[in-house]
Amino acid sequence: MEFKIVGRTIGIIWILEAILMLPSVVLAIYDRQPIVTWAFIITMFLMLTLGLLLWYYCRKIKKKPSYTSEGIVTVGLAWITMSVLGAVPFCISGEIPNYIDAFFEMVSGFTTTGASILRDVEALSRASLYWRSFSHWLGGMGMLVFILAIAQSGKQTAGFNLNLMRAESPGPSVSKLTPKTKETARTLYFLYFVLTVLCVIFLLCGELPLFDSLCLAFGTAGTGGFGVLNDSCAGYSPYIQNVLTVFMALFGINFGVYYLLILKRFKDAFRDEEIRLYFGILVAATLLITFDILPMTEGGFWTSLQHAAFQVSSITTTTGFSTVDFDLWPSFSKSILMVLMVCGACAGSTGGGIKTARLLLLGKMMFRSIRQTLRPRSVQLIQINRRPVEESVIHNVSSYMAAYWALMLISFILISLDNFSLETNISAVFACFNNIGPGFGGVGPTATYADYSVFSKLILSADMLLGRLEIFPLLTLFSRYTWNKKV
Amino acid sequence: MEFKIVGRTIGIIWILEAILMLPSVVLAIYDRQPIVTWAFIITMFLMLTLGLLLWYYCRKIKKKPSYTSEGIVTVGLAWITMSVLGAVPFCISGEIPNYIDAFFEMVSGFTTTGASILRDVEALSRASLYWRSFSHWLGGMGMLVFILAIAQSGKQTAGFNLNLMRAESPGPSVSKLTPKTKETARTLYFLYFVLTVLCVIFLLCGELPLFDSLCLAFGTAGTGGFGVLNDSCAGYSPYIQNVLTVFMALFGINFGVYYLLILKRFKDAFRDEEIRLYFGILVAATLLITFDILPMTEGGFWTSLQHAAFQVSSITTTTGFSTVDFDLWPSFSKSILMVLMVCGACAGSTGGGIKTARLLLLGKMMFRSIRQTLRPRSVQLIQINRRPVEESVIHNVSSYMAAYWALMLISFILISLDNFSLETNISAVFACFNNIGPGFGGVGPTATYADYSVFSKLILSADMLLGRLEIFPLLTLFSRYTWNKKV
Repeated sequence: MEFKIVGRTIGIIWILEAILMLPSVVLAIYDRQPIVTWAFIITMFLMLTLGLLLWYYCRKIKKKPSYTSEGIVTVGLAWITMSVLGAVPFCISGEIPNYIDAFFEMVSGFTTTGASILRDVEALSRASLYWRSFSHWLGGMGMLVFILAIAQSGKQTAGFNLNLMRAESPGPSVSKLTPKTKETARTLYFLYFVLTVLCVIFLLCGELPLFDSLCLAFGTAGTGGFGVLNDSCAGYSPYIQNVLTVFMALFGINFGVYYLLILKRFKDAFRDEEIRLYFGILVAATLLITFDILPMTEGGFWTSLQHAAFQVSSITTTTGFSTVDFDLWPSFSKSILMVLMVCGACAGSTGGGIKTARLLLLGKMMFRSIRQTLRPRSVQLIQINRRPVEESVIHNVSSYMAAYWALMLISFILISLDNFSLETNISAVFACFNNIGPGFGGVGPTATYADYSVFSKLILSADMLLGRLEIFPLLTLFSRYTWNKKV
Repeated sequence: MEFKIVGRTIGIIWILEAILMLPSVVLAIYDRQPIVTWAFIITMFLMLTLGLLLWYYCRKIKKKPSYTSEGIVTVGLAWITMSVLGAVPFCISGEIPNYIDAFFEMVSGFTTTGASILRDVEALSRASLYWRSFSHWLGGMGMLVFILAIAQSGKQTAGFNLNLMRAESPGPSVSKLTPKTKETARTLYFLYFVLTVLCVIFLLCGELPLFDSLCLAFGTAGTGGFGVLNDSCAGYSPYIQNVLTVFMALFGINFGVYYLLILKRFKDAFRDEEIRLYFGILVAATLLITFDILPMTEGGFWTSLQHAAFQVSSITTTTGFSTVDFDLWPSFSKSILMVLMVCGACAGSTGGGIKTARLLLLGKMMFRSIRQTLRPRSVQLIQINRRPVEESVIHNVSSYMAAYWALMLISFILISLDNFSLETNISAVFACFNNIGPGFGGVGPTATYADYSVFSKLILSADMLLGRLEIFPLLTLFSRYTWNKKV
């Protein structure tokens, strides 16, 4: 392990985070809120100082790094410290007096979960609302990928950079669009930026104010789910709701597919098995729920379809916006939403969950096992998009799933110490681990996570980070192999 | 596929099932219940006729079978038809008027689940109670293994027999105690018989009547859970309850370990990693629950410990007896029980669930993944009991887990059409798929599955069979590969 390359990168992250807080300072000054202004300025100063110190201390790398462990450890530590520092302004301004609450809110922001402890979102200053929503945008594509996109690339750190990206991008294998990591990072952020701007423009066309449009677009792009109103998206016009439905679904698509579209490889894009499964799930779930909630919905089929599509799009992409209190829906619809929570969006998108690519692979593994049971001696390959899948990828997916269920079950036991109902606890863990936000019962769309104890909030924060970073980059922080200086 | 070897074996199963109904006929005659007597006699006659016809038609095998598919298909079909026929007497006697209810009860019996649709168990005739409990005993070790133990073995069918056993015994790999399948089957049933007799003797010492002792021992040995009283085991003396606690735990142990004890290989037996993990889980869960329920239990620490140990032993071994209504326990204890439902007992025991051996393997896979993340180029072997685990076993466990969660989630959506609470539906699927019996909420220890619709009862019956046969033997029945005559 070469700790200096880790320290240097984390130093740069803190400096960058300080700079990205500037819009909030400007907003606070514009709104004439001296306390909030100072809260953000003090935090910025703190971050800059700490970041520069760390960077200065670690600027010279002596040992040639082995890359892999350094990249993974950097991602794990960066995400934790980003949230630790990002939560400070809420505390100083007194808008979220309890630091653990502020930390939970910030982890929820960066991991694009959207779970909140705020009972009254509308009481927050615009500066804080902006920072909260902007953290979704940053977390969606990843801060470290952002650094890769803007920083100078050197030959010495090429392997390190690739491993940063591998650890931060969601999905079973990294989608390297171009042979160079830096170019891939730039392309991803370019696509992300363009889609976000498009979303803002469509929202502005619905006569939504610029500030609200920006915040909503950040929440949609990062598939986060923090809103600016207490009722999430229930108060918006049907036009705004439909725009959000479409854009949430778009941000749940693998960005590699957009790249194929730019390259005019339309055939490859539409043939992609993951995309087909993704849209198949969206359409099937929407139709089933539409008919299930039809008897209880005022406004008939189209209103029913609109609500169903919004909620399905929001939950499948793990965004977490809501236009109705789906906790009041019939069990069948609730069960479908609960399963969608687990499924999640495409790999290489900003969404969370197991990811459609993994579902596809797990499904094919099941069919292979059936064939193998019947013909034990035959060799069966798994193909996706007509290409054989490497055995190492299959192994990784298997261990990922084992860790996924194991950690969720352990979290479920731990937070049940607060003695809420099984439904509340299960859906809280599901909603946090899969980076969704609202669950059912005590953490339903009209409720918050405020009532959980400090201990449970820390467990759920850990779940959000584990879910966003896909478990292993965080788990490695606790492995003695990582901290073994000799290797 | 050589269908005749399948037909012949299933014919023998039906004939055997008819013979095993004799004690119930005798009991019904002794209790002077003419309707029940005729119900059992008619069913016996039906089974004998059908069995003999099928056996006669399939007695000559022409094609040399490929063994694997034949063995698996036989097991799948045998278990379904055994339950279809076994349910008939309940219907004829009018004790369970609805055939689907009777089928559910019988599937629950053979799969050693213990989920019941009977609101008043005590209203049943002793003949029916006996048949219900005896189905647990048969299902625990497997009817086909029983046939292997008593039938003549031929060289021609050696491969077929091994595959029968492989499909029917629980766990990731078959525990071949001796090189010969027949001998292994005999040893298993010998151990099973001796332990059951011991259990009966201990229960008789507690002044329990012979009939009750037999039924309870069958339920304990098969880790089933059908009782003879409406309050399961709450009414029995602490002595009886403690005897059951111990014997449930004993029947959850891999029978291979008992074989080692007979061979006086004590070191190997006590060093076994699965056994250590199994007892570790039992002790840890018991202690945690004891302290959690202490404030609400009258009678202090020892009563609390006794209740905790009984429920933990019952749920971990997937038996499903209860001495208290654990649905009223605090969330923490309920969550632990819910996770124990999933864990299950040792491989090669009569218990269900994921099995401790698989948990061990999954845990080791997780740690391997962490090491592999940090050192991608190193080759990491997984060892259990100091022997390397074959990659094919790891693959099988991975697909098994994928199928396990996928089928549970699908069942959960389907049964939620009945609009019960999420907690009820989740725990119903957990309790049926893992062959436990009672769950929480609407299917808690004091409730039954009677309120579910016919559709849900069929789904849950399928879940019980999938859980008992470990998924793939049943899934292969729906594969076109199986029914391809050419191969």
